[in-house]
Amino acid sequence: MTSSPRRGRVTSMDHDQAHRWLATAVAEARAGLAEGGIPIGAALYGPDGTVLGRGHNRRVQDGDPSAHAETDAFRAAGRQRSYRGTTMVTTLSPCWYCSGLVRQFAIGRVVVGEAETFHGGHDWLAAHGVEIVVLDDAECVALMRDFIAARPALWNEDIGA
Amino acid sequence: MTSSPRRGRVTSMDHDQAHRWLATAVAEARAGLAEGGIPIGAALYGPDGTVLGRGHNRRVQDGDPSAHAETDAFRAAGRQRSYRGTTMVTTLSPCWYCSGLVRQFAIGRVVVGEAETFHGGHDWLAAHGVEIVVLDDAECVALMRDFIAARPALWNEDIGA
Repeated sequence: MTSSPRRGRVTSMDHDQAHRWLATAVAEARAGLAEGGIPIGAALYGPDGTVLGRGHNRRVQDGDPSAHAETDAFRAAGRQRSYRGTTMVTTLSPCWYCSGLVRQFAIGRVVVGEAETFHGGHDWLAAHGVEIVVLDDAECVALMRDFIAARPALWNEDIGA
Repeated sequence: MTSSPRRGRVTSMDHDQAHRWLATAVAEARAGLAEGGIPIGAALYGPDGTVLGRGHNRRVQDGDPSAHAETDAFRAAGRQRSYRGTTMVTTLSPCWYCSGLVRQFAIGRVVVGEAETFHGGHDWLAAHGVEIVVLDDAECVALMRDFIAARPALWNEDIGA
């Protein structure tokens, strides 16, 4: 069950594009933080580079424990016949729940802002053929590090720890 | 990654209780069917046997692709500090998305109505220490078999196939 995701390297997408897409997820994370929520954001991009849906963690705002950022972005995209060629961009390594989402719906690629403060299921996804791009983004790390230090109980609640 | 879930056998819960709890999920599945939706239902039970949340697939009703039955029941239960000792009861083997939910939040047990018309992640959950009870329930099988025969495209959309 181990694998080597292409940490820090960008493969089928160029480096500027990966960071541009990540900026959408970071904007969502910052919006969530400004609402008093958990600062994790995500966006689902279509094969042609359009945003199908974007969202952020809404546990606090909506009292909804299922509203992880990736799920919120997936929900915002509405019903789709296929996720072929789509990319889920997220500020943080996806937990098992959101990793399961990616696998079930055959989302082809995941761009991860950082996997340092939390290591979810992205290795498992890589082992199952999903392209994983980990950007080791300092802004994403700082967002989560500050949040976890400030609100450890809320963070543990969000990941079932 | 293979395992032998306790198919058809009931272990730490008695047979009557498992079927009583399943009846809650079946009632949800039938409610969803009556609304024109996909007939899959679920309920999250607490350690003391109270229903924390119940729900059903709402893809059609809400246009929400994330509203699988288990996610809907989990959402209905609202924020919880811990899922220790809880049981997710579902009419159908949980897909990867909902299996990831169970693993991430350390839900201890899953009661599955049937795993014949769809085989999701319940073996994977068993391999990771979740107690799995598969009831091989004829009513659950009939619900899904009839639905899949009547609406194959909708079913494929719901599981990303």
